[in-house]
Amino acid sequence: MINLNNFFNPSSIAIIGASRKKGKVGNVLVENLLSSKFKGKIYPVNPKAKKILNLKCYKSILSIKKKIDLVVIAIPAQYVLNVIKECNQNGIKDILIISAGFSEIGNKMLENNLKDYLTKNKMRMIGPNCLGILDSHSKLDTIFLPVNRLKRPEAGNISFVSQSGAVGSAVLDLATFEGHKFAKFISYGNASTIDETDILEYLSNDKDTKVICLYLEGIKNGRKFIKVLKEITKKKPVIAIKGGASEQGNKATLSHTGSLAGDYKVYSGIFKQLNIIQAETLEDMLDYAYIFENLIKPKGNKVQIITNGGGYGILTLDAVSKTKNLQLAQITEKTKELLKLHFPRTATISNPIDLVGDADNKRYEMALKYCLEDPNVDLILLIVLYQTPLLTFEITNIISKIIYKSKKPIVVVSTGGKIIKKFKKILEEKNIVVYTFPHEAVKSLSALVEYYF
Amino acid sequence: MINLNNFFNPSSIAIIGASRKKGKVGNVLVENLLSSKFKGKIYPVNPKAKKILNLKCYKSILSIKKKIDLVVIAIPAQYVLNVIKECNQNGIKDILIISAGFSEIGNKMLENNLKDYLTKNKMRMIGPNCLGILDSHSKLDTIFLPVNRLKRPEAGNISFVSQSGAVGSAVLDLATFEGHKFAKFISYGNASTIDETDILEYLSNDKDTKVICLYLEGIKNGRKFIKVLKEITKKKPVIAIKGGASEQGNKATLSHTGSLAGDYKVYSGIFKQLNIIQAETLEDMLDYAYIFENLIKPKGNKVQIITNGGGYGILTLDAVSKTKNLQLAQITEKTKELLKLHFPRTATISNPIDLVGDADNKRYEMALKYCLEDPNVDLILLIVLYQTPLLTFEITNIISKIIYKSKKPIVVVSTGGKIIKKFKKILEEKNIVVYTFPHEAVKSLSALVEYYF
Repeated sequence: MINLNNFFNPSSIAIIGASRKKGKVGNVLVENLLSSKFKGKIYPVNPKAKKILNLKCYKSILSIKKKIDLVVIAIPAQYVLNVIKECNQNGIKDILIISAGFSEIGNKMLENNLKDYLTKNKMRMIGPNCLGILDSHSKLDTIFLPVNRLKRPEAGNISFVSQSGAVGSAVLDLATFEGHKFAKFISYGNASTIDETDILEYLSNDKDTKVICLYLEGIKNGRKFIKVLKEITKKKPVIAIKGGASEQGNKATLSHTGSLAGDYKVYSGIFKQLNIIQAETLEDMLDYAYIFENLIKPKGNKVQIITNGGGYGILTLDAVSKTKNLQLAQITEKTKELLKLHFPRTATISNPIDLVGDADNKRYEMALKYCLEDPNVDLILLIVLYQTPLLTFEITNIISKIIYKSKKPIVVVSTGGKIIKKFKKILEEKNIVVYTFPHEAVKSLSALVEYYF
Repeated sequence: MINLNNFFNPSSIAIIGASRKKGKVGNVLVENLLSSKFKGKIYPVNPKAKKILNLKCYKSILSIKKKIDLVVIAIPAQYVLNVIKECNQNGIKDILIISAGFSEIGNKMLENNLKDYLTKNKMRMIGPNCLGILDSHSKLDTIFLPVNRLKRPEAGNISFVSQSGAVGSAVLDLATFEGHKFAKFISYGNASTIDETDILEYLSNDKDTKVICLYLEGIKNGRKFIKVLKEITKKKPVIAIKGGASEQGNKATLSHTGSLAGDYKVYSGIFKQLNIIQAETLEDMLDYAYIFENLIKPKGNKVQIITNGGGYGILTLDAVSKTKNLQLAQITEKTKELLKLHFPRTATISNPIDLVGDADNKRYEMALKYCLEDPNVDLILLIVLYQTPLLTFEITNIISKIIYKSKKPIVVVSTGGKIIKKFKKILEEKNIVVYTFPHEAVKSLSALVEYYF
């Protein structure tokens, strides 16, 4: 395993190409490190400036007579190799190259020269042509987009590895807005020396990372990927989305990060074999990360649906039937008898259990309690259409108390506007997973079962 | 066609089962009519009350010596027929029955008796077992959920017909929160006399309705549905979602609204034949409604993708390739030459056109302008990852000006947090369609092309 500690938790960092001009990449990089409350030392490097954002500026990497753990390079491609030679001279081994202009636009020789030098001198490099790295725990922020355009996430347990900076940043921004929390974010660009497998392997041993999301277009070293990922997925779930699924997309990836995407079916087959969870869309990827972040291994694949809206129960049932690995639970006669005692005649005690529109907190409590005690139930999908007036926010306490006692994974579905967002937020603060639509919840439960069985 | 004017635009309305007790259905109904600014007369009926919410209350329908256009009934099932007889005696022909407790819980005889009487006396009835009706233009609101639980939409051009009250209300609430505007909302429940086909036929002639969404579990009269829908879809798009798609779901619908769902494949076949756009999920249904509400018929199926993020372009390309009816546009050599003049070497001029991360407003302007002028382009999918600092909000004016001049449908994709939501809002106020994820935009464009070709 390659040690990437200096990339995520450096005690000192130099920015080559630091700039005084607001909005420039070299200025944003310094500004972000300052505003992220990064605790290490920051050394801006620019031969023409004396100070940048009140920090002393250095003429070159050679003029910094201090220990430097990580160097971030954001200067035109043709000057990069020279700076790397200076880094080596100064005993610096860890380099992050933001600069583009290499193999992705046909400058293969430039990138190969870089690669040869780095390999020969045992230096580690992430990039080039990448967006940067973020560690929400160490507060390291080398993403070159300004904070007013891309909000940084709170510290959490999802790590996101993206070959594409655009996919990475857009999804990170949305996910943060929706309240997801992240451990690490790595845009790795052309993967010239350190590739996706190296990063994933490092994350598999990272205590802050519970689930890994991966956007990739191509795999640099197929054999290595297969060998290493087989072990990683035994430790942690990896959710992957493959760009370049189509023949046309495949061609386009070539001009994007300079890597050949390969046949989609081949990838799907490999993913399945390696127990990598494949997401079809970015939306699915986030949905799956959410369930893995919060839920534990179920005992089996039998789902009980509980609802207060008949139509919602039916749509959920349809979605369950569409999956290849979920089964509908069949509650025991004993459970049925117990529920009959508490429910009105209008309620349906089957799968779904339909508590009907006038269900109150108590009816939900009974349904949850008895279903969780039922040996035939492994997973619960709880639909709460909070639009009905007999439910109160007290139901969030009732639900969470029962859930905490249980070892069975439960997801909630609740669709709606302002009041539903509030309801969702209360439950999420209690670490309960809430999806907006039935199909999201069902696909995520299916991913959970796929990973564990 | 059955005339349903009195259901949507009555000049007077009586509420049977009106109640003084806050939170009760009969109280919520009166309160909603008052707060919705409904302009007609409201007559609460309750033998025990003198006033309800400051309105004079009547002992029975017979004691109201005024013209009544619509009667809303919310009393226990067994008393409904008697009230209907009184309505008939008073010359009232239009009845909305909120009350449940009929065929959906096995009381078929009760419902049949109702049906026989109504048919014999040429009365029109929506329900029973329904949530109510909403007309955002006339301000009629007979939905029995309180406004603090279910926010009402602004007046717009989508009409939503739902057999299930739960599906209807939850989706309406969410859609309103997301800024969608509605013409009419109809929860039709058991469809004992007036069925889905009658309502759809009425909406096909409604000037406020531009696109119809339909959630249905079963069809009451197959022959009538086929005959009428064939004509309706020539006038307006109908987007349908079928509950009970699976064998299990099918069984569950039987106990929900008492209708047999039938085989899913049969439905899909019929939908295709009738040019009904089938949505797989509620999310898809809303996405499709959004595009039909705002965009016109394209000239063909050839899509040009424009992006500032390579990975996003690739995922969009993949999504286009997955559709059965969209083709990738191939811009002419002339367009390529024109774009080359304005773009840096790093940009890719193909499909997708990748403006790369440092794209500014001007680069977008050029790309849009020349692609819209290109005869090989029918549709444009414009990805704007507004996280990059060189873009400013002025781009919304640039985009909208070019779009207004063009006759080609354009959708925007933009993923992210707070600043993206603001960007989206500005564009939506200019009637430009913005989706969060590539797959949403692509599926919706595919639905648009499916309907028109």
